[in-house]
Amino acid sequence: MRALLCDRDPVLARGYPEPVPGPHEALVQLRTAGICHTDLELARGYMGYRGVLGHEFVGEVLSASDGALVGKRVVADINAGCGHCDACRRGDPHHCPSRTVLGIVGRDGAMADRFTIPESCLVAVPDSVSDDAAVFAEPLAAALHVLDDAPATPEPVVVVGDGKLGQLVARAVVSADRDAVVVGRHAAKLALVRAAGARAVLESELGGELDGASVVVDATGRAAGIALALRLVRPRGTVVLKTTIAGATSVDLSPVVIHELRVVGSRCGDLARAVDALAAGRVDPTPLIDARYTLDDARRAFRRASEPGSLKVLIER
Amino acid sequence: MRALLCDRDPVLARGYPEPVPGPHEALVQLRTAGICHTDLELARGYMGYRGVLGHEFVGEVLSASDGALVGKRVVADINAGCGHCDACRRGDPHHCPSRTVLGIVGRDGAMADRFTIPESCLVAVPDSVSDDAAVFAEPLAAALHVLDDAPATPEPVVVVGDGKLGQLVARAVVSADRDAVVVGRHAAKLALVRAAGARAVLESELGGELDGASVVVDATGRAAGIALALRLVRPRGTVVLKTTIAGATSVDLSPVVIHELRVVGSRCGDLARAVDALAAGRVDPTPLIDARYTLDDARRAFRRASEPGSLKVLIER
Repeated sequence: MRALLCDRDPVLARGYPEPVPGPHEALVQLRTAGICHTDLELARGYMGYRGVLGHEFVGEVLSASDGALVGKRVVADINAGCGHCDACRRGDPHHCPSRTVLGIVGRDGAMADRFTIPESCLVAVPDSVSDDAAVFAEPLAAALHVLDDAPATPEPVVVVGDGKLGQLVARAVVSADRDAVVVGRHAAKLALVRAAGARAVLESELGGELDGASVVVDATGRAAGIALALRLVRPRGTVVLKTTIAGATSVDLSPVVIHELRVVGSRCGDLARAVDALAAGRVDPTPLIDARYTLDDARRAFRRASEPGSLKVLIER
Repeated sequence: MRALLCDRDPVLARGYPEPVPGPHEALVQLRTAGICHTDLELARGYMGYRGVLGHEFVGEVLSASDGALVGKRVVADINAGCGHCDACRRGDPHHCPSRTVLGIVGRDGAMADRFTIPESCLVAVPDSVSDDAAVFAEPLAAALHVLDDAPATPEPVVVVGDGKLGQLVARAVVSADRDAVVVGRHAAKLALVRAAGARAVLESELGGELDGASVVVDATGRAAGIALALRLVRPRGTVVLKTTIAGATSVDLSPVVIHELRVVGSRCGDLARAVDALAAGRVDPTPLIDARYTLDDARRAFRRASEPGSLKVLIER
């Protein structure tokens, strides 16, 4: 079968072995996958991953020990815990030290004809949710998870970054009936933010109007974004950090102590919550689709996704 | 009068003008001052401060509009808010954007014969508390403030750093009937930690025994200390950051996001709480006194405080 292998320039293998589901694993056939910033980082060597790429997907269950799943369209929590450790017993497989993470750590990903994943990770997609929307379930779950760390204040949540993740975080905030303001560098992307019901400010035009924000989310993927978030937040305010940068980052952390900030890291979220938000129409991520390619053209899809300014690039089987 | 002026090698001025108290300010005569890591950083140019040094002190009130204060031995909250801004009206002068900070920002410090300070900052010292203990009130308040951000768990609080601040943080944790473990680099300092009722581990002998700590306090003043704290804390755990390093610091922040850590900056604390802890005998900081000098010998005191491995150096009037 076809599978896209992680490499500096990802390689489409055509004779990749068919995956064989283990106990309580489902065999899933890809419908659509999405390219994430993390995929681009993995291709550059982040986490040392070398396997099949892809952790944002909607697929169809071909086989599963739970017969009710067969034939269902599904998305999935990409973190598969060991089931035995302290974290897993606490119900927190996202932090299981020996977890696999689909297409990121120790488990082949979804950019292939077929792949396996623990059935416990799967979330069925209602018919009312299109493939184009469902493929955003994983990053939308991560975006909605920001709300868990954003103290409930009447003030707007400031989102630094107008890329794929910043766009979804803004939509997540708006879906919770809270005000969002996105600070970005691209007029076209900020127009999308406004269409989704959030405010938008070009970083180059930023005066002091957002200084003293009580909650700032960094969704830039850049050290400069972290620095800007630390500058905008008020004393004792909260910075939710979504940016992972491989290796040491040079940042002035003295504002964290001087202003007694609370910096909270935020990674993956609850897939069922994301599917609910999509099904209820509270979030429409489809305006973020930038381009679509077939699995045969996956390498071109990656090149497109690497271009500055691109938004979500989809890969369809 | 005599006053120690901030400079790379601080200068003792002998004809410094006598300070004149403003409205609701007390005139205080120094009894004993303590040299803090921040004083050494200020001398190196941190904050661009150029004035009289000294923010850890015990003194005697010579004059005040509140007659009850005159003649009292006092310590003080070093942050003096403007009284009018949002932060001050919230009762949070520590984060007043136009605050002065004794010996640090916009207000001459305590390493002089006499100095002025708002009466509202003063806390009287009971007779039962010696000058040697009272001079620690300001850093002890900062150490006790760590407890406000350390979630109550039965697990020990891990303190990285066995210097002046780490020593006080360990004592603060023990005073709250919680277990503390200090990770340090100096056998003699770790012996002091043990005498104060905490556990102690040499960093060079550290295996995995502290991995997965739920609360880690960085009190090292070094970027390497921040990195160690981020390595020791468990997923979703708390790192309390006390280290201020001027300018950009190179740290790998990806654990904050991957492990969804909560990093909380912690600066100054409540002076009355510190005086209470001293008066009740819950904390004895006096074993941390390393050397004492007179104000005339203040430059030598600074040189001593700059030597690697030194603990608290006092300056007596």
